[in-house]
Amino acid sequence: MIKTIIGKPDFIESLRGKRASFMLALSNTKTADIEGITQAGIRNMIYLTPTLDSEFLCTGEVRSLENIAQTPKGVPTPALITRAVHLLAPYGRIELLDLGLEIKPKLDYFTQHGFDITPSQSIVEGADIDAQEVFEKGVAFGQSYECQDEYIILAESVPSGTTTATATALGLGYKAEGMFSSSFKNSPDDIKEKTLKLALSNIDDKNDIFDTLSKVSDNMIIFNAGFLMGLNNRIKVILAGGTQMACVLLVMNRILKLMGGAMETSNLALCTTKWVAEDENSDIEALLKMLSFPINAYYADFDFSLSERPALKLYDEGEAKEGVGAGGALVYGFLNGVSKDKITKQVESQL
Amino acid sequence: MIKTIIGKPDFIESLRGKRASFMLALSNTKTADIEGITQAGIRNMIYLTPTLDSEFLCTGEVRSLENIAQTPKGVPTPALITRAVHLLAPYGRIELLDLGLEIKPKLDYFTQHGFDITPSQSIVEGADIDAQEVFEKGVAFGQSYECQDEYIILAESVPSGTTTATATALGLGYKAEGMFSSSFKNSPDDIKEKTLKLALSNIDDKNDIFDTLSKVSDNMIIFNAGFLMGLNNRIKVILAGGTQMACVLLVMNRILKLMGGAMETSNLALCTTKWVAEDENSDIEALLKMLSFPINAYYADFDFSLSERPALKLYDEGEAKEGVGAGGALVYGFLNGVSKDKITKQVESQL
Repeated sequence: MIKTIIGKPDFIESLRGKRASFMLALSNTKTADIEGITQAGIRNMIYLTPTLDSEFLCTGEVRSLENIAQTPKGVPTPALITRAVHLLAPYGRIELLDLGLEIKPKLDYFTQHGFDITPSQSIVEGADIDAQEVFEKGVAFGQSYECQDEYIILAESVPSGTTTATATALGLGYKAEGMFSSSFKNSPDDIKEKTLKLALSNIDDKNDIFDTLSKVSDNMIIFNAGFLMGLNNRIKVILAGGTQMACVLLVMNRILKLMGGAMETSNLALCTTKWVAEDENSDIEALLKMLSFPINAYYADFDFSLSERPALKLYDEGEAKEGVGAGGALVYGFLNGVSKDKITKQVESQL
Repeated sequence: MIKTIIGKPDFIESLRGKRASFMLALSNTKTADIEGITQAGIRNMIYLTPTLDSEFLCTGEVRSLENIAQTPKGVPTPALITRAVHLLAPYGRIELLDLGLEIKPKLDYFTQHGFDITPSQSIVEGADIDAQEVFEKGVAFGQSYECQDEYIILAESVPSGTTTATATALGLGYKAEGMFSSSFKNSPDDIKEKTLKLALSNIDDKNDIFDTLSKVSDNMIIFNAGFLMGLNNRIKVILAGGTQMACVLLVMNRILKLMGGAMETSNLALCTTKWVAEDENSDIEALLKMLSFPINAYYADFDFSLSERPALKLYDEGEAKEGVGAGGALVYGFLNGVSKDKITKQVESQL
């Protein structure tokens, strides 16, 4: 039920039965305001998606709006999947990383790590991120963070994050055209390509890594690259996400190269959904193969074939695909004895 | 599956997946010897109920008698529910508080905290509790207690405890008539009212709080009010019980007022059963609304609708309702991924 994309099953099998801290990295980039670039949320209120996702994941309620985020086509947020697993095989705790949110989640009792990071601008206008500062905040957090469970599942909710991830990888010089996925089944390639072209026009070869990240990336990618480097393999981490999380690794890879340093990555893996792993319009495996360090990557062999609900069937048709750590959550469920059937029923009961 | 009585779901959701120490406060009051006042046990051997409950909860066996405590009508003790959850989603440990037991539980290996507290007399004759001393023992225990899990579930087994709780609240001047529940479906109002009238005749306006408690309360209520104040919000606590546990809060509330002090209560909540929460003959919500501090309260949306067993169906008809922390145990089960169906089957298998 857990399939290997790259590496061997040993890493993920060694986590079977173990409790994880679920960490959700949240960020807004104004890139998401570009008409038609993302369907990760409610039109004109896309910026609310990470806020609503975290409220729903933690409490089962959305508080900053009446309804849970869903796409214009009615695809419900993958937070439904992540929450369903939590109800069936609870994470040890959920912690939120506020990496620049427009609206803070209305939650008591849940740890919300704040870093004084503001939402980033549209990459069309040069994002305006202090990338080195955001990166250093990630490093400091990784150096000091004490995990109260046996490992971390690190997930994200960043609307239009695949666009900023693509710009990041291309901006750093990776030959990554066509390798990044989209929340759309039929990716709005013209809007996305135009956006990328404009974004990349803001940088040139003279820009160093952090200049480039400042202009074309997002806070989640930059912070988490720092976070992982600060952790320095001290705690096992599952990057729960698709090509955006692969981009975190690409950034880390480039910074390691810059530093002329090597980092042990044996405690690091990526887990995503089947919808990303089998997506014909992207190639996460190719992205991971660009890394200079070894990495294990897996996907949860889960789809909605056991469901009759049209809103869920849209996932199997290629909409949404991943987000809020859905792939890592599914893997966690499987590692803790929860069946595909049970997850399906639980997700359905939440619709 | 967990419903909110007062407050927001955040507190209880933040405990999802976390391990709790289950603490069972045990006490005898001779009030239980009044013919017909309680059905929490075997006639003429009501005093054995907390002893048998704790033996069964810890080991699955009753040792101080051949059979598990059940009412004359054959309602099995709610310890069955609390034990069932322990088998499906184990508490981190079970610890017993001996707050004045006639017969000590025959148990090895389980921590039994002793405080040199003797069973109290009938409130008809003035209970004869050294309330200040019992309270201070609670405070000292709270100040020194180190929790080895992430939070405490604090439960009770005190036959005729709803009667002493009613007397306590009324004695302290709360307008709480008709708000306390009973282990009976049809509460023996005449016996209970006569008992309360006699009990309250032992006190007058000149009595201070501790004088009043000495005469009309029970050790569990007094000790736990001290225990919570000694903990002083340092550890998360779920009061697992119905109106008796609400009474603990009412006592604490009155003592805080006396001291002119405030106490942070953000780490304190109450969890009870659906049978108490929806009981038409009592009103736990109203009791909790008399408190001057905020409190979160929840109930487990659990009943025996999935069972055909007549002994269990009696719960759904209003008998027994709560005790041995059944409501908190059910919430704990739900927080740890156990379904209503599984709990039902487990309870049935123990009959």
